[in-house]
Amino acid sequence: MAEPRDFRLLLVGYGTVNRNVHELIEARAAELSKLHGVRPIVVGIARRGGVVRGAGKGGIAPQDVPPKPRDRGGLKELLADTPADCVVEATPTDLKTGEPGLGHIRAALAQRKHVVTANKGPLALALPDLTALARESRVALRYEATVAGAIPVLNTAERSLLGYGITGVDGILNGTSNFILTRMADEGTDFSQALKEARELGYAEADPSNDVDGHDAAAKAVILANAVLGLPVRLKDVHTTGITSLTREAMELAKERGMTIKLIASVARDASPTVAPRLLPRGSMLDVGGTLNVVRFRTERAGPIALVGHGAGGPETASAVLSDILAVAMSHHVSSSG
Amino acid sequence: MAEPRDFRLLLVGYGTVNRNVHELIEARAAELSKLHGVRPIVVGIARRGGVVRGAGKGGIAPQDVPPKPRDRGGLKELLADTPADCVVEATPTDLKTGEPGLGHIRAALAQRKHVVTANKGPLALALPDLTALARESRVALRYEATVAGAIPVLNTAERSLLGYGITGVDGILNGTSNFILTRMADEGTDFSQALKEARELGYAEADPSNDVDGHDAAAKAVILANAVLGLPVRLKDVHTTGITSLTREAMELAKERGMTIKLIASVARDASPTVAPRLLPRGSMLDVGGTLNVVRFRTERAGPIALVGHGAGGPETASAVLSDILAVAMSHHVSSSG
Repeated sequence: MAEPRDFRLLLVGYGTVNRNVHELIEARAAELSKLHGVRPIVVGIARRGGVVRGAGKGGIAPQDVPPKPRDRGGLKELLADTPADCVVEATPTDLKTGEPGLGHIRAALAQRKHVVTANKGPLALALPDLTALARESRVALRYEATVAGAIPVLNTAERSLLGYGITGVDGILNGTSNFILTRMADEGTDFSQALKEARELGYAEADPSNDVDGHDAAAKAVILANAVLGLPVRLKDVHTTGITSLTREAMELAKERGMTIKLIASVARDASPTVAPRLLPRGSMLDVGGTLNVVRFRTERAGPIALVGHGAGGPETASAVLSDILAVAMSHHVSSSG
Repeated sequence: MAEPRDFRLLLVGYGTVNRNVHELIEARAAELSKLHGVRPIVVGIARRGGVVRGAGKGGIAPQDVPPKPRDRGGLKELLADTPADCVVEATPTDLKTGEPGLGHIRAALAQRKHVVTANKGPLALALPDLTALARESRVALRYEATVAGAIPVLNTAERSLLGYGITGVDGILNGTSNFILTRMADEGTDFSQALKEARELGYAEADPSNDVDGHDAAAKAVILANAVLGLPVRLKDVHTTGITSLTREAMELAKERGMTIKLIASVARDASPTVAPRLLPRGSMLDVGGTLNVVRFRTERAGPIALVGHGAGGPETASAVLSDILAVAMSHHVSSSG
């Protein structure tokens, strides 16, 4: 077997996601070299407060990342002086401006670096432009981790459903709101009580508005529309209704009819993208409980096909990021030199 | 854009599956050339009673396939005189001998032809050997259509779950027995009544024993164990129990406890492969109704991930076969010359 090829990474942001990515790469280095002929190496990290550069041949190990970097600067400085193949962007999501991720992704693509990101914000706001920029620069832009966490939705659509004729995608893309609706349906609680429980269990953040108002699901709908259907949709194009005004009575009425209410994101070739509470028959493919996510592809030639799994969590998201890194490394044998 | 590459196919067997494959290729020719740079061409067909050879540059069109071929012979004769890249095997399944498919696949691999098959029999009996033979001949052997029909189970495991660490796979792999169990659970009917309904609706064959005795699911478990986990398992290694002795009372008792009974196939790194009726909590990822199939991957790094869809049907199976043909055509740019 040939010597594994180095694939040099710059990590931007070093919160839960990229820290997990870094540790996963370290833990699986031998296996990745053997199975895939690829050795991902972290050669630089940009985080709040400064940058870290890889000194030796093996790059930076997770245990050698200082809590406070000594060197000042950011991705711009790393791109200028640290030869790399791919930028892994995982700074916090901002659905209003997309920053700082949007600037990072643009800069990386402009310098012909592949980009793997777990950051929904920049994609929800500017995916058509970023896709065009990646194409011009002849590099890859991948973002499996941004939709339905651990579930390989985009890779499945791209690679495994070749020839099925996907005409639309529907899904439950937000675990927090699904937990709340499941509690309301199963226990007869009202919205505010269910939200309180979600907070206590750590499923909802202090400010849950992006989750319960549907904006998080809408951002993911944008990504699905662009990536799976090739539609140049942006966040402002999605008709979005959240779950905050759903009453206990509405849920009760649904139940009496053998139905349930779920927050469903839908994108299709022949309709505007939407996020809204929908009545579903119990036992429908989309009827998954708790914090689970589901994505159902409508296909011309094989009927509906659904993927179900956990939508969030550090290790889950890191697995999705790593699968993107491997996909880029394995399909782009000639890497840019610096 | 470059001229699309011809990818020359020999179809073996011309029942529902390969007829649908042929029609799908014809219907999507322009799209496949444009999107994938590949032009699949049927250059030969071996069916009961003889062979058909493609005369012109475009190969054989579906409407030009005579019900009774004039030329005698079979795959052997086609392999000898008709240059081709890939053999598409879809003769009827025989779980006892694997023939005639087993002979076809061996002959094709020995002559360095790629093989795509929808035939479970040869794989259930000899997958470890066939995999080794394909490797020696440096050609591809793909069989997405053999497990869970339309659901891209094998492709997803191979390509989209890279890096997730799959430790086991569980699933409902037989739509007929799932229909029967669903009727028993929902309507309180007994096994024989539910089987009668399945027959009336066309979901069960005249001889349903492979379905209700678990052998069909066991064959698919063998394929999953080999393809997803790399375990050299054969059909005789699977501990198989069917659903024929399940009573209405057992189903009733399960229901009272909020459970249901499903015929579950399981393969794992650390346990023997099994097919048996299992008690499941209602709402479990594996609890899908009617003729649906489900496959749940157990992963080290992202928890369980399930795929749900329709397990059978001519167009569904043909979509899976075509996705394999495209995968081979696109990843093997240098084809053997004849």
